[in-house]
Amino acid sequence: MNPNKERILTGDRTTGQLHLGHYVGSLRSRVELQEVHDTYILLADVQALTTHYEQPELIANSVHQVTLDYLAVGIDPDKSTLFIQSMIPEIAELTVIFSMFVTVNALRHNPTIKTEARDRGYTDLYYGFLGYPVSQAADIACCKTTLIPAGEDQIPHVETARKLVRRFNELYAPVFPEPRILTGARLGGLDGVGKMSKSMGNAISLNADPQDVQAKLTKAKTDPARIRRSDPGHPDICPVYAYHQLFRSADTEEIHTACSQGKIGCTDCKRLAGDAVNELLAPFRERRGYYEQRKSQVKELLMEGTRKARRTAKETMLEVREAMGIRYFDL
Amino acid sequence: MNPNKERILTGDRTTGQLHLGHYVGSLRSRVELQEVHDTYILLADVQALTTHYEQPELIANSVHQVTLDYLAVGIDPDKSTLFIQSMIPEIAELTVIFSMFVTVNALRHNPTIKTEARDRGYTDLYYGFLGYPVSQAADIACCKTTLIPAGEDQIPHVETARKLVRRFNELYAPVFPEPRILTGARLGGLDGVGKMSKSMGNAISLNADPQDVQAKLTKAKTDPARIRRSDPGHPDICPVYAYHQLFRSADTEEIHTACSQGKIGCTDCKRLAGDAVNELLAPFRERRGYYEQRKSQVKELLMEGTRKARRTAKETMLEVREAMGIRYFDL
Repeated sequence: MNPNKERILTGDRTTGQLHLGHYVGSLRSRVELQEVHDTYILLADVQALTTHYEQPELIANSVHQVTLDYLAVGIDPDKSTLFIQSMIPEIAELTVIFSMFVTVNALRHNPTIKTEARDRGYTDLYYGFLGYPVSQAADIACCKTTLIPAGEDQIPHVETARKLVRRFNELYAPVFPEPRILTGARLGGLDGVGKMSKSMGNAISLNADPQDVQAKLTKAKTDPARIRRSDPGHPDICPVYAYHQLFRSADTEEIHTACSQGKIGCTDCKRLAGDAVNELLAPFRERRGYYEQRKSQVKELLMEGTRKARRTAKETMLEVREAMGIRYFDL
Repeated sequence: MNPNKERILTGDRTTGQLHLGHYVGSLRSRVELQEVHDTYILLADVQALTTHYEQPELIANSVHQVTLDYLAVGIDPDKSTLFIQSMIPEIAELTVIFSMFVTVNALRHNPTIKTEARDRGYTDLYYGFLGYPVSQAADIACCKTTLIPAGEDQIPHVETARKLVRRFNELYAPVFPEPRILTGARLGGLDGVGKMSKSMGNAISLNADPQDVQAKLTKAKTDPARIRRSDPGHPDICPVYAYHQLFRSADTEEIHTACSQGKIGCTDCKRLAGDAVNELLAPFRERRGYYEQRKSQVKELLMEGTRKARRTAKETMLEVREAMGIRYFDL
């Protein structure tokens, strides 16, 4: 076995389709990493429940939709193990065990939890919501993950996971590796406020059609100092220029110059950005269409991935029981 | 099937041997109830971790010892299903789901959690400790429990369980019955302070030998107003008289009169109480001795009970998934 081979775990909450922000932040690197590393990808339907327990049909439908998103962007089910979180009871078991080693206050001080609670208007936190970093740590540890490609907002959660596996290893026996995070780029929202986020309504879905992409970019915020077409622009602070940088490699410098000199208007610039996004999305749409016609094949590959992840998690939990001295017998 | 047949769940944390307080509060009624009702008894090793995660060997050893306690007092493995909590992953799964429906503050206000946290000197609560009523609710619901014979301190936890199953039934589909509690008597500690409790060091173990029982009773607190043997006593406030009432049926009234008139001394009275306790414990010691010689039989009956509980819990979790619409496929 390649000693540099990492065990990768990433995943997404199944609360709707994925968007360009997910692609830039994590999906893009997953597609590359699966070529070299042992990759597990989690459809986080249990974590989705922490915020959407009143809409289980949305969660179940999103399991299918997010799987299509994965296949569309180039996740190869022969290389990556796609699996459904709620079908791995061992994750729940490890969540309960890890719950013993972290205090309520430590979770309350998690900056990502704080931000999310504020954004969602939560005052009295649900117990499961406060504890989702513990559940994430169990996802990570069950797969003996070493590397997590994810957005910057996941840094505190990976830190919690590191602390929990370290604590377990110290208390009982060294069962778990300490995972590291590999942060991807961050894509701003079309409104120029914060990151691209489904719940903020500033996102471009990965399965948006070409007209929709152009329409969304048309409404994007640009450099607010630029009033007339001939005013010099400030591409380095313009949200639309960020799209050029991320999705258009050939003529990024030219556009920078043209904008700075007031030689290209925002409308044209946005259209060019939209073209770049559409160029990126074209093969995604094609692959998605292919799999949309093959529902049973998609279900089959999810079943196979879930079976494999379950075997991995079961082996880990046997080691956990052995380490803790609570492997009384095997049923 | 008998329409009055209840599904009973009770259990004990496996953090040491059981004592007379457990017998009076719950074990005694379990022995009666198993004759009529469908009884499940849980060895709560996961809940034991919430306070004893640093002593897993104590927890594992106590699984065996508490099982011996059960058999000793007359729990019949052909009538009651004895099972180990950590070997039922479905309980962990349901714990995680129930976590979505209860807030951190609601758990913080649980009076039993408050008292225990104070008694243990916890200032910053562990996440798993704060949430153990959620885990108990999952124990209860996984078995579709209708009746819980338990001590009064369990009333807030059963109330939490009732709220959680009600919430689940409202949100998704009526899967769970609402459990009721059947409270047993409360036995005071030998120190006259609070209830009998292992951690307070005021307990008589169910497997104490006769000398030990007498020695412990000798040191018991009595009516503090009674200084000389000829002083009239106040049996109704005397901790030792409570033992007469609970364990000695024949001559309780006579002792009450003799104490009130200063005609029996505390030393004699304590010896009589000790005799009564020893009379109760004699058949327990015998049965315990029998099973202590048959370790593999004890293990076998635990395996069988755990297998049965697992089948029950699996069926429940399939209904849970069906109700929530997240039964994607069966592996």
